[in-house]
Amino acid sequence: MAEAPVVHLVGSGPGDPELLTVKAWKLLQRAEVVVHDRLVGQGILDLVPPSALRIDVGKKPGEHRFDQNSINALLAELAAPGRLVIRLKGGDPFVFGRGGEEALYLLRRGIRVEVVPGITAAFGCAAANRVPLTHRGVATGVRFVTGHCRDGWWLELDWKSLADPATTLVVYMGLAHIEQITTRLVEAGLDAATPTMAIENGTQDGERSLRAPLGGLAEATRDAAFRSPVLFIIGPVVEVLHNPAPLPLEIPDRHAAWIERVLHA
Amino acid sequence: MAEAPVVHLVGSGPGDPELLTVKAWKLLQRAEVVVHDRLVGQGILDLVPPSALRIDVGKKPGEHRFDQNSINALLAELAAPGRLVIRLKGGDPFVFGRGGEEALYLLRRGIRVEVVPGITAAFGCAAANRVPLTHRGVATGVRFVTGHCRDGWWLELDWKSLADPATTLVVYMGLAHIEQITTRLVEAGLDAATPTMAIENGTQDGERSLRAPLGGLAEATRDAAFRSPVLFIIGPVVEVLHNPAPLPLEIPDRHAAWIERVLHA
Repeated sequence: MAEAPVVHLVGSGPGDPELLTVKAWKLLQRAEVVVHDRLVGQGILDLVPPSALRIDVGKKPGEHRFDQNSINALLAELAAPGRLVIRLKGGDPFVFGRGGEEALYLLRRGIRVEVVPGITAAFGCAAANRVPLTHRGVATGVRFVTGHCRDGWWLELDWKSLADPATTLVVYMGLAHIEQITTRLVEAGLDAATPTMAIENGTQDGERSLRAPLGGLAEATRDAAFRSPVLFIIGPVVEVLHNPAPLPLEIPDRHAAWIERVLHA
Repeated sequence: MAEAPVVHLVGSGPGDPELLTVKAWKLLQRAEVVVHDRLVGQGILDLVPPSALRIDVGKKPGEHRFDQNSINALLAELAAPGRLVIRLKGGDPFVFGRGGEEALYLLRRGIRVEVVPGITAAFGCAAANRVPLTHRGVATGVRFVTGHCRDGWWLELDWKSLADPATTLVVYMGLAHIEQITTRLVEAGLDAATPTMAIENGTQDGERSLRAPLGGLAEATRDAAFRSPVLFIIGPVVEVLHNPAPLPLEIPDRHAAWIERVLHA
């Protein structure tokens, strides 16, 4: 009985090849076909054997070369028993990557799908810029939305619920609409002084970041001429680890005694 | 001039050693000291050289052996110029891992902190169980909260905002309070028929998962005798890739022509 064809839906992480998972790293080195997005960096593509077929189906902003249906059909066409086909997507395949749509198309046509998660941009950027997305007493949760506007979708967002000072808000692909996003959040009750960070090219060569109060974020990114991809982190967590007041290194006796015991156990 | 001491705050991912990042994998193999949590699996600890000092500071539920202050002080005590000290945390250090508190303590005392992100449980479990956390027309965003109850914190949650059918809700550490969580969500307006999934030991040996409507989730996890760690995913995305209706593999002419061009470019 022939093995069922399979497509590996693999997250490439935020850009730095060392932020690939070990699983993705190993798969890429054995790949026979790699269908990848525009945002997957060269350092990652260099892992793929020269003999493999590599297809760039990336969409440039404003230039929709390949629609999603064509990509789905291409993956189905490429899948074959025993062939290692990788669909390589920036970040994690299941967060704003339309990986679910590709998986659904393939599964409905009898093609197996194996998913390898990736470090999503929010975690890559938070680690690189020392922003704890949750922090006791500051943020009890974190929320990801996309700022990519389609079919007037923004008008439907529940701004009241997004304007929650205790939930860190991360906005993907929001550069084009950051003026509208920040205005709506302030109108919905979020303090215009709320700390925010913008990160351009997170974890990649040429990464830049800036901090600004929510009310000045749109202007700050415009002044700095930020270009896509940009991630926004909105919430007081942005300031927690920046310029913390120095404290002397004094270890209370009860901790010191415990540390002694642990180290000499 | 002496090099400043540094602590590496490293995410171990959801459990499977292959879901470590390449960066974490390499660091662990050179580690001199590893201070780790209870949930970091043996397969990952096996990467650490036998010569390294390994300290388990994991808290068992209901038994707080080491408080956070002691762990902070221990890390400061261990940090020394030129010594590779790793603080290894389950998932990602900056999501419900109190990594921010450790980083703050260290930074305030002149100790550098390098953060390596990890695959958080939500992405590991979503990939392993084929749940797209966002999906066009189904979920426009995703939100992470913790179900760990402390100081009556649950009473302060904005249930109305959490009960949003268009935002996938992921609950970490919620097993003990799942009855209360589901009841409150339904009271706040979320349909009791909303699909949900519970995942025990996600991506690890012995992983189990179940699907249930929101109204029956507490009973289902009780009946299946689920034990911590359990992750809950709440939202219609849970069903998107399960039992999809089969469709014939027919590729429309315009896609077929494009695929021909791409493959023979």
